[in-house]
Amino acid sequence: MNKKGVLIVISGFSGVGKGTVVRKLVEKHGYSLSVSATTRQPRPGEVDGRDYHFKTVAEFENLIDYNGFIEWAQYVENYYGTPRKFVEDELQAGHNVILEIEVQGAMNIKQQYEDAVLIFITAPDARTLKERLEGRGTEDRKVISKRLKRAYEETDDMPSYDYLVVNDDLDTCVEHVHAIILAENFKTSKNQAYISRMKEELSQIRKETAL
Amino acid sequence: MNKKGVLIVISGFSGVGKGTVVRKLVEKHGYSLSVSATTRQPRPGEVDGRDYHFKTVAEFENLIDYNGFIEWAQYVENYYGTPRKFVEDELQAGHNVILEIEVQGAMNIKQQYEDAVLIFITAPDARTLKERLEGRGTEDRKVISKRLKRAYEETDDMPSYDYLVVNDDLDTCVEHVHAIILAENFKTSKNQAYISRMKEELSQIRKETAL
Repeated sequence: MNKKGVLIVISGFSGVGKGTVVRKLVEKHGYSLSVSATTRQPRPGEVDGRDYHFKTVAEFENLIDYNGFIEWAQYVENYYGTPRKFVEDELQAGHNVILEIEVQGAMNIKQQYEDAVLIFITAPDARTLKERLEGRGTEDRKVISKRLKRAYEETDDMPSYDYLVVNDDLDTCVEHVHAIILAENFKTSKNQAYISRMKEELSQIRKETAL
Repeated sequence: MNKKGVLIVISGFSGVGKGTVVRKLVEKHGYSLSVSATTRQPRPGEVDGRDYHFKTVAEFENLIDYNGFIEWAQYVENYYGTPRKFVEDELQAGHNVILEIEVQGAMNIKQQYEDAVLIFITAPDARTLKERLEGRGTEDRKVISKRLKRAYEETDDMPSYDYLVVNDDLDTCVEHVHAIILAENFKTSKNQAYISRMKEELSQIRKETAL
């Protein structure tokens, strides 16, 4: 069944471990990962092209002008965007592409790619989410409080996602997201060409075997 | 995430191996299997309650009168039907229920259960399908020709199914159908109660941790 790939958009609460889920999906199941472009400075250990495509403001704004992003946004003083060419080339080649992005970006993408599959990664319950935010150790109470507020607000956006997956055990969560991507590829709407071909072949074979 | 189970309706071309796929799904993944009722005579080796619920015509017609079937049909001189109580009890208990049924029955069920998930099992191509029909050895050319005609007609119904799964390798096919059932359980529409609970919990936790 030759066909276009599926665009998978993954969001989730801060602290829920969605970055790790995405990395494991790519490592284990070979999905294509869309790497964002940004104008912010690389942090220690970040690699250009792997973590982000690092751009100057002039480069980024030029790409905006040339429709180079399927979505972009400005947070504080930095730009962030999803390069269009990579995503479209991969989908065209029949590869499933994963995109990790926050809620507003996900909604923008759904408007342009109605076949995009939106998955929200969540925690078993709110207490677990809070514990994970605290467990990071690096965040002070003010940051945690702010993230819980953000999580509370994001529950309003959860109904806009196609699927909710709980990240309780990491490997289980990865397999559940993988199952969703597999299933999406079996949707009848993605396999119209197969149906036409089967109909034609059966017609041909019936002629050959006519009694 | 406590919720109702998913009703899975499986159809497929004659000879495609859907019966084996269904049996493996039940054995390996513990899905509930709906057993049909029929008025036809048991064949050698068939067990009442496992292969079919064997009924007299009077019993069957009485069950029709009492709305005991979610769908029923008459082929030649025999009745076949899907008992309502088993399916509804299992769904209510949160179990995913599998139903193997031909195309017309599947359409009837979709009309009553709009959340039912319709899966069509197909062969890699028409030639493989023909080989499998011939490979059974028990069928004469006339029967094979009739089944190929039926398959040709059924391609018109394939677009009414939610998913198409190719049965090339049996174990792979079973895992693909299993992935679809998993994915269906993660649909946001099936998890509204979880979203409400999460929102409430986050609201509570924010009060407790207010700075």
